[in-house]
Amino acid sequence: MSDSRDVIAANDTFYRAFAARDLAAMEALWAKRAPVACIHPGWDVLTDRDQVMASWAAILGNPAAPQLRYHDPEAFLHGDTAFVICCEVVFGTRLVATNIFVREDGAWRMVHHQASQVASPEEARARRDSSGATVH
Amino acid sequence: MSDSRDVIAANDTFYRAFAARDLAAMEALWAKRAPVACIHPGWDVLTDRDQVMASWAAILGNPAAPQLRYHDPEAFLHGDTAFVICCEVVFGTRLVATNIFVREDGAWRMVHHQASQVASPEEARARRDSSGATVH
Repeated sequence: MSDSRDVIAANDTFYRAFAARDLAAMEALWAKRAPVACIHPGWDVLTDRDQVMASWAAILGNPAAPQLRYHDPEAFLHGDTAFVICCEVVFGTRLVATNIFVREDGAWRMVHHQASQVASPEEARARRDSSGATVH
Repeated sequence: MSDSRDVIAANDTFYRAFAARDLAAMEALWAKRAPVACIHPGWDVLTDRDQVMASWAAILGNPAAPQLRYHDPEAFLHGDTAFVICCEVVFGTRLVATNIFVREDGAWRMVHHQASQVASPEEARARRDSSGATVH
């Protein structure tokens, strides 16, 4: 399960770059040739590498940007592509993120990040028990 | 660009199955062997095919489940894997979705769906102009 370990490591690199406000590490992680996209919470969709990197420059360069913790990453492998789902905690709010990676030049590079707010475990349980009346 | 067209068609199949409350079509669309996951808005993460299909059975079988429109799909191709980003509108609320597909048995099959609320274009612009102070 080396691929799984390597993808989880690439996912960890993403959050370490964020925590260290390390734009160079963030830039190195994102794929150079594969098409990329990014959906920050509350932003519109970014579907161009220059836009995505400009967003990271703005966020990581901003002293007011929040700290971000993550936990419980799980990798889903599909050959030379993989996605990782993990929980994020920002300002005490629980988010869930999907991070997609592709193998490029022998390394796992990020091609997509989407984070969104989720219910607490109790809320999620209640939601499921009500048979999805208020969700799609 | 046949792959792009085919992936967009698979994405359309997802929303048609939803609109028609067609659980069989939804079940046929999701990958049989590749690992799948699903993040419904306000639900906890589902990381098992049986859980994912049970969630669709609950949602599609519920007369109170909302109608869901989508528009502006954009495909990102990575060999035998692809993801589509598109906008969704549910109860007048604008969401953005990432749908991941893999080629399985010669067809594009869904392996992941995540939808989350986004800002209006005006809000997104204001957010970008403030250099990401309140986002990650």
